Amino acid sequence: MTIENIDINSYPGSEKVYLNGEIYPIKVAMRKVNLTPTVKIVDGEKQVTDNGSVYIYDTSGVYTDPAVTIDINSGIPRVREQWIAQRDDLEQLLHITSDYGRRREEDRSLDSIRFAKRYAPRRAMEGKEITQMALARQGVVTPEMEYVAIRENMNARKLGIKTHITPEFVRAEIAAGRAVLPANINHPEAEPMIIGRNFLVKLNTNIGNSALSSGIEEEVSKAVWSCYWGGDTLMDLSTGDNIHETREWIIRNCPIPVGTVPVYQALEKVNGKVEDLTWEIYRDTLIEQAEQGVDYFTIHAGALRAHADMIGRRLTGCVSRGGSIMTRWAVLHNEENFLYTHFHEICEILARYDVAVSLGDGMRPGSIHDANDEAQFLELDVLGELTEIAWQHNVQVLIEGPGHVPMNKINENMDRQIEKCHEAPFYTLGPLTTDIAPGYDHITSAIGAAQIAWLGTAMICYVTPKEHLALPNLDDVRQGVITYKIAAHAADLAKGHPGAQLRDDALSKARYDFRWKDQFNLSLDPAKARQYYVESHRDDDKFCTMCGPNFCAMRITQGIADDCAK
Amino acid sequence: MTIENIDINSYPGSEKVYLNGEIYPIKVAMRKVNLTPTVKIVDGEKQVTDNGSVYIYDTSGVYTDPAVTIDINSGIPRVREQWIAQRDDLEQLLHITSDYGRRREEDRSLDSIRFAKRYAPRRAMEGKEITQMALARQGVVTPEMEYVAIRENMNARKLGIKTHITPEFVRAEIAAGRAVLPANINHPEAEPMIIGRNFLVKLNTNIGNSALSSGIEEEVSKAVWSCYWGGDTLMDLSTGDNIHETREWIIRNCPIPVGTVPVYQALEKVNGKVEDLTWEIYRDTLIEQAEQGVDYFTIHAGALRAHADMIGRRLTGCVSRGGSIMTRWAVLHNEENFLYTHFHEICEILARYDVAVSLGDGMRPGSIHDANDEAQFLELDVLGELTEIAWQHNVQVLIEGPGHVPMNKINENMDRQIEKCHEAPFYTLGPLTTDIAPGYDHITSAIGAAQIAWLGTAMICYVTPKEHLALPNLDDVRQGVITYKIAAHAADLAKGHPGAQLRDDALSKARYDFRWKDQFNLSLDPAKARQYYVESHRDDDKFCTMCGPNFCAMRITQGIADDCAK
Repeated sequence: MTIENIDINSYPGSEKVYLNGEIYPIKVAMRKVNLTPTVKIVDGEKQVTDNGSVYIYDTSGVYTDPAVTIDINSGIPRVREQWIAQRDDLEQLLHITSDYGRRREEDRSLDSIRFAKRYAPRRAMEGKEITQMALARQGVVTPEMEYVAIRENMNARKLGIKTHITPEFVRAEIAAGRAVLPANINHPEAEPMIIGRNFLVKLNTNIGNSALSSGIEEEVSKAVWSCYWGGDTLMDLSTGDNIHETREWIIRNCPIPVGTVPVYQALEKVNGKVEDLTWEIYRDTLIEQAEQGVDYFTIHAGALRAHADMIGRRLTGCVSRGGSIMTRWAVLHNEENFLYTHFHEICEILARYDVAVSLGDGMRPGSIHDANDEAQFLELDVLGELTEIAWQHNVQVLIEGPGHVPMNKINENMDRQIEKCHEAPFYTLGPLTTDIAPGYDHITSAIGAAQIAWLGTAMICYVTPKEHLALPNLDDVRQGVITYKIAAHAADLAKGHPGAQLRDDALSKARYDFRWKDQFNLSLDPAKARQYYVESHRDDDKFCTMCGPNFCAMRITQGIADDCAK
Repeated sequence: MTIENIDINSYPGSEKVYLNGEIYPIKVAMRKVNLTPTVKIVDGEKQVTDNGSVYIYDTSGVYTDPAVTIDINSGIPRVREQWIAQRDDLEQLLHITSDYGRRREEDRSLDSIRFAKRYAPRRAMEGKEITQMALARQGVVTPEMEYVAIRENMNARKLGIKTHITPEFVRAEIAAGRAVLPANINHPEAEPMIIGRNFLVKLNTNIGNSALSSGIEEEVSKAVWSCYWGGDTLMDLSTGDNIHETREWIIRNCPIPVGTVPVYQALEKVNGKVEDLTWEIYRDTLIEQAEQGVDYFTIHAGALRAHADMIGRRLTGCVSRGGSIMTRWAVLHNEENFLYTHFHEICEILARYDVAVSLGDGMRPGSIHDANDEAQFLELDVLGELTEIAWQHNVQVLIEGPGHVPMNKINENMDRQIEKCHEAPFYTLGPLTTDIAPGYDHITSAIGAAQIAWLGTAMICYVTPKEHLALPNLDDVRQGVITYKIAAHAADLAKGHPGAQLRDDALSKARYDFRWKDQFNLSLDPAKARQYYVESHRDDDKFCTMCGPNFCAMRITQGIADDCAK
């Protein structure tokens, strides 16, 4: 099996570089775009000005490092392996703990689709508090924390700016619960990253095979594809066959944190019959996935029995799969949602592997009509309560948010979330700011995502053009990721993230200088920009086709500057 | 010559309807989407609920009326002809006034590319004040004003809601200068529409042949294409050959107001040599175009000699073609911009035809770096001064705005514009909220456009994916228009425009009912939504491919509602 579609030359003018840590012997990966000089003829003399280079935050892992040979049958290098191996608070298990996981392991018929290499899972020693949050609260700056501090600072560092984002600041934000560093000890392939409103805005992408389509190869390929374009985390929402094996392939080859919604697999285990779901099956699924290396679980523990009646008063009911499953379970059994009643136990499990919890918004509005209603805000209150429980166990917490919300109601979502959920990072799906554009919901939602991210949302979950209509293909994923990179970066600029504007300035200067290649190389999607350009230009044109040679404003302007200088 | 690409069946489930006026015998065109009923089986009984219909604001003119046979050689029906013909303040001219226009008319070699039909131009009788603004100030409600009041209200009217948008309100807004109703008396083909922050947000599209490509047929086709998808006004930015004849074809076939930037043609007349531009040539161009029926002119009268030095301090200089031409002219002649010094005369000309002036922002920032700088805001002050002059002549005024602006600086643009320009409607290009995504600037700018429109911008100028890179093709125009319809509608929702949410609610209900066809028919781009869907569904699927049949949240939710009802 090989990774198709990835052409490391589609980021031309770039090199993979690694910055060294100062506290730990770590190497922080990033992409460096080397710019060409500005060349001008002034009074017959050639004037050459160097334009230096720009660092780009790089989520593509070793897939863009020409020094690394990729073989997805062996998985990618385990960057955190040594840091984890040196810890004295972890134990390595002889066997995997989950019943289901063992049965899959013993099933020889699965050998042909199994990821061949085996790693013994690790977990916390009995009585040890091992999560990044636990360590942060003890005052420990981990290698992961130093890694993200360097990663978030790369252009500020280049500019010689000392920013507030130090390893100690990272530690303090994690300790306070204001930031999450997803880092399952069984996913050492992931490069550390941080989610919090005082850091760069992050974006999540979703992949997953459903009952209808897709295979393992396609899913692995999609996972790599989305982080190649800029996805910061990846949710595997598979619901079809061989979920367990698919997940192993993805995690072993994924340089970014992976999230799942465990209830999807639990439901598969009872053949899709909601009434047959049990806490025991769910619990076993959590352990199964934690030992594979899932970095965060979406858990719909805030969707309560009481929501069922409110759903009936909505225009579009409940549009969350997990939320609808758990609410229906509660109604059918006339009991409270077992994820709510067992939440302490859930946190105990998560704490042993450092899996973060992403508290699902089962009651997110599925239409403009239902935005900010009683069901949604009741659940948000419950999520705040659960946040405090998770933090008692040193489990890191994200709060998931809407959905469909008109622009004038977005602010209230952010304010309430900060207040009710004690500043735990907000992680929103869009929100979509209108319902009337199926086929373009990457755009309806990017408008809302940019706005809410500016206001303080830490991570935005991408939406592809196929949302509401069909599963995305590779091109849809690329469009969705780039659209969300735009929203995230627009928010970073608006928030004044140190050094964020360096890339805009460098690109705009390249544009003004007619250094077309630099303009492409600095852009979010160099291949696309170049493609549009070459369809209608010669390589050295000193104008773009929009205005034509006689009307180029920038060329005329350079004339003004020259005239004024005379 | 025929119009290609337009398939009136791509708006299925729709019919063209006309609502009658109450003051005048006018017929206001709109599109009506007829919905299918909701069918449910309850306790074995079939329950059928009617879903009625939804009106859609319709910019496509007679091109979507099956009762009208289109022949672009004769032009489209002249909907305002009778209203204009009945006026006693207008005169019909025996000859066109412009020297250049007459020379073109007399040139037999142009016969093959000329629009054959001839209409004698009209203008105000000497001493008569004939603009919509003049009439509004005299207390006259014109047919145009009643037309837009009905048009803006269609769904509120359907819901039985009395809104503030009455013909009298329209009159008062125009009288106050807070709204513009572009309505050149020589463009009776245009259906009346209004631009103001107390009305639906409008969007402008740009077309134009440059020296490099395009021909007349293609431009007419593009014009119709962009209003078919939802463009409210159209700017013809042509800079190549035969501008005069191309414009005639476009106006005679255009059901929406047309704008131009007259200095482009004036510059062509002096072979592209900025220093050779004169007031006389420009003046003749204004008259030439006004008598053809151009509804508004972009005039860069605020780009002053003083700006030249400020340009040198910018990262990307001056990115406005008109602004750079006029600033360069001022520098080369060491005189003030002649559009500024002759502004009273300009207004006298415009007032005779009811051409609105769109005061160009020659100093709009071309990069995040240059946003909200001294050059930009100095010009805005000048535009405010010019607004008052135009209003003295009863000339309607729009103010053009940026450009490239990060989200955190958008608010200041809107506040200042309202203050300095005395509430004249703001008309912005985007703004683009980051510079780093060439190839996706429809999206970088839609984020800013939605935000600024919510804050009060009356019209947003679309940006296509090819911005900065190449001229847009038909698909780019479609993408640009739909993206801007999204931004405009998101702002209408946020502003609480009466009845705006009706369409969202109807579409979301259709989605929840799995009435796929209604969902498509109500969407901004029915053909695209349907295309994505049919690629992976059977027609009657009660789920979408995203979740698959076992995991559809909406299906599970309907189960909850049924369970709760038992």
